[in-house]
Amino acid sequence: MNEKVFRDPVHNYVNVDHPVIYALINSKEFQRLRRIKQLGTSGFTFHGGEHSRFSHSLGAYEIARQVTAKFEKKYPGLWSKEESLLTKVAALLHDIGHGAYSHSFERLFDTDHELMSQLVITDPETEICQILQTVAPDFPYQIASIISHNHPNKKIEQLISSQIDVDRMDYLLRDSYFSGVSYGEFDLTRILRVIRPTEDGIVFDIQGMHAVEDYIVSRYQMYMQVYFHPATRAMEVLLQNLLKRARVLYPVEPVFFQQTSPLLIPFFKQNFDLFDYLAIDDGVMNTYFQAWMQSSDEILADLASRFVNRKVFKSVTFREEDTDRLDDLRLLVAQIGFDPEYYTAIHRNFDLPYDIYHPEAEQPRTQIELYQKDGRLVELSQRSPLVSTLSGTIHGDQRFYFPREMIEESIFAEDHEAFSNILDDLSY
Amino acid sequence: MNEKVFRDPVHNYVNVDHPVIYALINSKEFQRLRRIKQLGTSGFTFHGGEHSRFSHSLGAYEIARQVTAKFEKKYPGLWSKEESLLTKVAALLHDIGHGAYSHSFERLFDTDHELMSQLVITDPETEICQILQTVAPDFPYQIASIISHNHPNKKIEQLISSQIDVDRMDYLLRDSYFSGVSYGEFDLTRILRVIRPTEDGIVFDIQGMHAVEDYIVSRYQMYMQVYFHPATRAMEVLLQNLLKRARVLYPVEPVFFQQTSPLLIPFFKQNFDLFDYLAIDDGVMNTYFQAWMQSSDEILADLASRFVNRKVFKSVTFREEDTDRLDDLRLLVAQIGFDPEYYTAIHRNFDLPYDIYHPEAEQPRTQIELYQKDGRLVELSQRSPLVSTLSGTIHGDQRFYFPREMIEESIFAEDHEAFSNILDDLSY
Amino acid sequence: MNEKVFRDPVHNYVNVDHPVIYALINSKEFQRLRRIKQLGTSGFTFHGGEHSRFSHSLGAYEIARQVTAKFEKKYPGLWSKEESLLTKVAALLHDIGHGAYSHSFERLFDTDHELMSQLVITDPETEICQILQTVAPDFPYQIASIISHNHPNKKIEQLISSQIDVDRMDYLLRDSYFSGVSYGEFDLTRILRVIRPTEDGIVFDIQGMHAVEDYIVSRYQMYMQVYFHPATRAMEVLLQNLLKRARVLYPVEPVFFQQTSPLLIPFFKQNFDLFDYLAIDDGVMNTYFQAWMQSSDEILADLASRFVNRKVFKSVTFREEDTDRLDDLRLLVAQIGFDPEYYTAIHRNFDLPYDIYHPEAEQPRTQIELYQKDGRLVELSQRSPLVSTLSGTIHGDQRFYFPREMIEESIFAEDHEAFSNILDDLSY
Amino acid sequence: MNEKVFRDPVHNYVNVDHPVIYALINSKEFQRLRRIKQLGTSGFTFHGGEHSRFSHSLGAYEIARQVTAKFEKKYPGLWSKEESLLTKVAALLHDIGHGAYSHSFERLFDTDHELMSQLVITDPETEICQILQTVAPDFPYQIASIISHNHPNKKIEQLISSQIDVDRMDYLLRDSYFSGVSYGEFDLTRILRVIRPTEDGIVFDIQGMHAVEDYIVSRYQMYMQVYFHPATRAMEVLLQNLLKRARVLYPVEPVFFQQTSPLLIPFFKQNFDLFDYLAIDDGVMNTYFQAWMQSSDEILADLASRFVNRKVFKSVTFREEDTDRLDDLRLLVAQIGFDPEYYTAIHRNFDLPYDIYHPEAEQPRTQIELYQKDGRLVELSQRSPLVSTLSGTIHGDQRFYFPREMIEESIFAEDHEAFSNILDDLSY
Repeated sequence: MNEKVFRDPVHNYVNVDHPVIYALINSKEFQRLRRIKQLGTSGFTFHGGEHSRFSHSLGAYEIARQVTAKFEKKYPGLWSKEESLLTKVAALLHDIGHGAYSHSFERLFDTDHELMSQLVITDPETEICQILQTVAPDFPYQIASIISHNHPNKKIEQLISSQIDVDRMDYLLRDSYFSGVSYGEFDLTRILRVIRPTEDGIVFDIQGMHAVEDYIVSRYQMYMQVYFHPATRAMEVLLQNLLKRARVLYPVEPVFFQQTSPLLIPFFKQNFDLFDYLAIDDGVMNTYFQAWMQSSDEILADLASRFVNRKVFKSVTFREEDTDRLDDLRLLVAQIGFDPEYYTAIHRNFDLPYDIYHPEAEQPRTQIELYQKDGRLVELSQRSPLVSTLSGTIHGDQRFYFPREMIEESIFAEDHEAFSNILDDLSY
Repeated sequence: MNEKVFRDPVHNYVNVDHPVIYALINSKEFQRLRRIKQLGTSGFTFHGGEHSRFSHSLGAYEIARQVTAKFEKKYPGLWSKEESLLTKVAALLHDIGHGAYSHSFERLFDTDHELMSQLVITDPETEICQILQTVAPDFPYQIASIISHNHPNKKIEQLISSQIDVDRMDYLLRDSYFSGVSYGEFDLTRILRVIRPTEDGIVFDIQGMHAVEDYIVSRYQMYMQVYFHPATRAMEVLLQNLLKRARVLYPVEPVFFQQTSPLLIPFFKQNFDLFDYLAIDDGVMNTYFQAWMQSSDEILADLASRFVNRKVFKSVTFREEDTDRLDDLRLLVAQIGFDPEYYTAIHRNFDLPYDIYHPEAEQPRTQIELYQKDGRLVELSQRSPLVSTLSGTIHGDQRFYFPREMIEESIFAEDHEAFSNILDDLSY
Repeated sequence: MNEKVFRDPVHNYVNVDHPVIYALINSKEFQRLRRIKQLGTSGFTFHGGEHSRFSHSLGAYEIARQVTAKFEKKYPGLWSKEESLLTKVAALLHDIGHGAYSHSFERLFDTDHELMSQLVITDPETEICQILQTVAPDFPYQIASIISHNHPNKKIEQLISSQIDVDRMDYLLRDSYFSGVSYGEFDLTRILRVIRPTEDGIVFDIQGMHAVEDYIVSRYQMYMQVYFHPATRAMEVLLQNLLKRARVLYPVEPVFFQQTSPLLIPFFKQNFDLFDYLAIDDGVMNTYFQAWMQSSDEILADLASRFVNRKVFKSVTFREEDTDRLDDLRLLVAQIGFDPEYYTAIHRNFDLPYDIYHPEAEQPRTQIELYQKDGRLVELSQRSPLVSTLSGTIHGDQRFYFPREMIEESIFAEDHEAFSNILDDLSY
Repeated sequence: MNEKVFRDPVHNYVNVDHPVIYALINSKEFQRLRRIKQLGTSGFTFHGGEHSRFSHSLGAYEIARQVTAKFEKKYPGLWSKEESLLTKVAALLHDIGHGAYSHSFERLFDTDHELMSQLVITDPETEICQILQTVAPDFPYQIASIISHNHPNKKIEQLISSQIDVDRMDYLLRDSYFSGVSYGEFDLTRILRVIRPTEDGIVFDIQGMHAVEDYIVSRYQMYMQVYFHPATRAMEVLLQNLLKRARVLYPVEPVFFQQTSPLLIPFFKQNFDLFDYLAIDDGVMNTYFQAWMQSSDEILADLASRFVNRKVFKSVTFREEDTDRLDDLRLLVAQIGFDPEYYTAIHRNFDLPYDIYHPEAEQPRTQIELYQKDGRLVELSQRSPLVSTLSGTIHGDQRFYFPREMIEESIFAEDHEAFSNILDDLSY
């Protein structure tokens, strides 16, 4: 086929040179990703971060294309054309099951985007499955097994999902570019130069060690600076409380929800299928929230309005041993007239930036290995003191969220003071 | 107040140092701009171009802030603190009345985003008007008159709306950055160095002539390469035909539209107010289009599906004198079974990159003037041969759009051939 | 061979995958280019522009490598492996005969960098010639004939030297990057996508027309803004007058020059060979100028000091018809005590940004042609109004240079006034 | 004065708004910095890294200007106009005493660039001293004492020289930009936002902690990747051996050196003054080396030729306990006919990326402190696990250098093998 290209600010061009890839991009399930933001509520904090999962999926594909083209050319004995196609398709589709505001939605409605990805890929009703079947009858299942980490080919597995995979490499660069935050930048060109396949995995020439190290540090910094930003999580918490309220109200006022948010009914009823799931996107959710602002239920209407108009909750970090002081805060919140069930929340965000392989772990991580001049491999943190520090340690915090009104002048002076005093105690 | 900042990929930071600006940004009418894409259907062609009018409005404000801060410091006799505030607020709010897919929406429903901007700013029911009134009772009207080009202060007018204004400067840089197309880049820093106020306007030191020239050329190239892209206009045309079909169907099936697209009813009825207008955003429209895909009307359902799933029409350019050949094309389209009223369209896109001042014109343009060492002014195209070429000339094309099926194998061979022959004739 | 790479800020990496290329880079004649600045006296105006001809030569090679790799893969019938090697080597070596401050040096000492390039390539004493001979005995002559525009292969000729060649493409991007001036940027990636060979030349797919247009405009702007900068030319003029004085003095004081500037003697005597020429570089010249500051000849010492310490001459533009007024200026300069022969100069800088093919011209230019969908070619300015404006027109100015002292308070008031009055007359 | 600007690729513009600063830049001692490369022999490894100390000095000044302008405006009680001028001048002049290839030169000839800086600033014969005296008679001494770390004002001291100062901030960004290596990039804008003066030092708002952390990590990576690059050090070692040979030969062949390298004589004699020192620059040194290539002393001629033509030594890292094996290597080198005194070398490069304050140390470092919301300070590594890892630890390696011939086929097979065997033993 004629090569097709997509202009891309991160990779300059996304190159499509296989008709199956082109058909997949044009399928309706893939086009749906245009309507789902990559960063969920982060766009409320970093206004540039409004890019879609569509653009990230193209980007992950493009990195896969570059890596596999190099592997085919340089390591013919270790890498085949078939492995390239599997990798490129899996990279393109790795997020295909993501829905609107995935994290909150999954939590409230027991959906699972990984499972959904499997279904989009293997359900013969989808355009994507039908396209994949043109390659081979079992091709959809092969792709699905890569995405569910069950494929026997460990090289492909690692390229798609490991501590340094095409997904992460694209999203760090992309989220960084669109948010306007430089922390996510790392030297992709150099990593693409030093990456190489072995019999059963992916490793990196040791001369490129600092580029890999830089990637790990960048990832850590993006988590600390962007993904875990307190204001972003405030919107997440608001969203969760809003959906919780809706779920509780639905049995009481089914007609209201039928009229204002018909596509959510299968989820309220916990009786949904793949196509119900695919019908929901960011725009649908926001449209419903705007309708809910007219609800006669004050809590639903108010939370919806806060979300739509970005009236974020405030928060305080707290230590585990202070957890019981939170009840005092909730009491004061209730005293002012806010139901703590919906107007407060605890939000925990922790990340393990890197870890070595622990065979005994439930989901052991594939460690990053460096290829030395003599062909022996050495694990990354053995060589990099920076990575060694981050290895096996978790970073993040836990926060208690509450309405901004609690720290404004608008409430009774004594409540205000009592609340502030506890906040001061919690801050350590 | 404490300075607040917003991370911005184009200007690095947007700095807010006035409480009125901060309050305006937090108003619900301004937050609404997060839900409206800056580039409308361009995002379907340039997948990175998914940024909102919210981010562009902040950007235009930031340029205004930098320009006015310089003016206050360097030209105290020619520029006052009051003029700075007027300029900054007007820059922030210049797009406040924009709606979802403005161009098509306005065309179909006779709305007018400039009028809407006036209303958002001056209607005492809006948060924005209430905030503006805290400055002075007539402050909303002053801002509104700047945006409607009726303010007596020509310096402010030109900064907000002229052939080189804060709006254009931001959108060229921003659309360029997000689309991944370098053509829109120009040397903003240099322009900010050479811009200066006179008694009754804004001019540029002649040493900066090439930076201004570069800006004009960049603007021209963005129109040719991005804004007038045939695929983008294909989506625009599809949208217009879809809305046209809905408007025609509404009187026949009011219940269907009441259920699937309640917020559009006031527009179908041509009886809407400001708040009806503000309730519509990109997500709402897309949600409705997805619902319309289930319509029993085949045309509505099909057009909606094509729009949602990005099945673009194809097109051919044509000369004015060939206009009657288009009827032959329409006939063939009809023969295949597509109603030409909804499955074809003419789309014209022309731009006048730069023009000198023509006092006799209906809307005369303020020409760009250069400040020479001796203080005399000279009009830009007198000095720049590049601008002189572009001056007073229009660029663009007119295209006839039709379904892709017309050029595919799927139709009768003879129809296919007849259609192709006319296309060949039109291409000159 | 193992691929070798050079980190490059413009192209990210320069990739070397052929042993002959690698050997050429390591030859002493090529390493010499590290000691010659790409931009001559421009670095005195744009302090970042201190990059060497070494880095530019690598960059031109890298573009050639990318273009030819694409040609080999995509147009096997129209492009061969041999043509790739010829093109890459010619690109690498196109500037090999450049010397220190080429322009002034050539003017004063009748050297010719194109001829010198021929010699470096074909003289069996050079490492470069010896390396080239390992490919084939006549390989040096083939390369030399490409660089002297006498090679029968028009495709290679155009890639190496035409209105859009690998040399210009690299230097615009590189000079722009290092100077910190954005005007030279254009969309190289897109140009590399649309460039294609024909039977007897190089053309560009018409979809890429705007990228080519942008390149022409960028080139024009770099000339106007950077290459023709008055301060740069002031240093050029100073250098020429300094060398002129030395040449005049040499017969009078041969011992002084033998001691302070031995490597220049063959040039003073007009009796030099290739190796004399290669022994001179920027550092050698500057070292000599520093020594000349101690000369007992006041003019030589003063001019050397002005050059070394960057005391630039001032200048005024003038029209052809005002040329005789310059004598009045020279007279005043002499009256103050400066010898006009060495303390004034005329400097003309004109460029023809683009031209169509004029078979009757002495050195006809190969015009840029666009490849249309139907395979027919069309000349660029037929399609681009911007290029059409620039086509066949020359741009630049002529300036009269004089010592800054003439416009300072330090001289007699009446001389000062007389001088200023003429300057005012000349400025139009 | 009218603001003067210099185009700068790193800071976009360097702004000069004080006549003393402008005069200093135009002084001959400052212009000399144009002739000294910032990165010494690094340009032989990273060909883009050819920028001068002139551009770095302007850059350090520009950061100082931005920081002090902010301090003056935001912290009027803690920062005065006088402190701004002191800081800006000290930043501009901090490297004024640097000479050609400083490190090697100092080592061989017992010069000291810090002492030379003092002299340039305070010797009444220099243009710089004369300009500084126009501010106040003791102004030169104040500037000198800042640069020698003896000034009582700790705020200025820390801005000019500490673990995060204007010097380092500029050189990381600049060396990174010119070398084309992204590792040195960090978020300068954010650091400029969070930097603040206290009564007796400079601290950083804790919200900016990650930007400071990123700076420390970037610095570490630049050392590991760029400054300590083995090929760069190979050229350094070659240079040292070359100068060592010249120093040894001088008493034997004074005439040769008098003729070929007159400006080095005072250094050979160990009897030089400031103006002897200022007469040496990169170009002078390279000119001399080129002349030495003609020496009748084979070692001098060969080492000069290797340096000029970039024939780098090869190297191997070694552990302290293997030091005695190096004698075996030297023996083999001698056996082949290379004098180990001049054809081998040990090169150690170690860096302490960050350290806390150790009052007992000889040169205690000023630790980086973060300003917490309640006004209390906390040391950086207390909060940043990444910095904590790097704190107090040294990084780098020691290498043994030898001629490339030792590992090529050109020598006797048995010597070759013996040499290779020891190299293998050393590599651990």
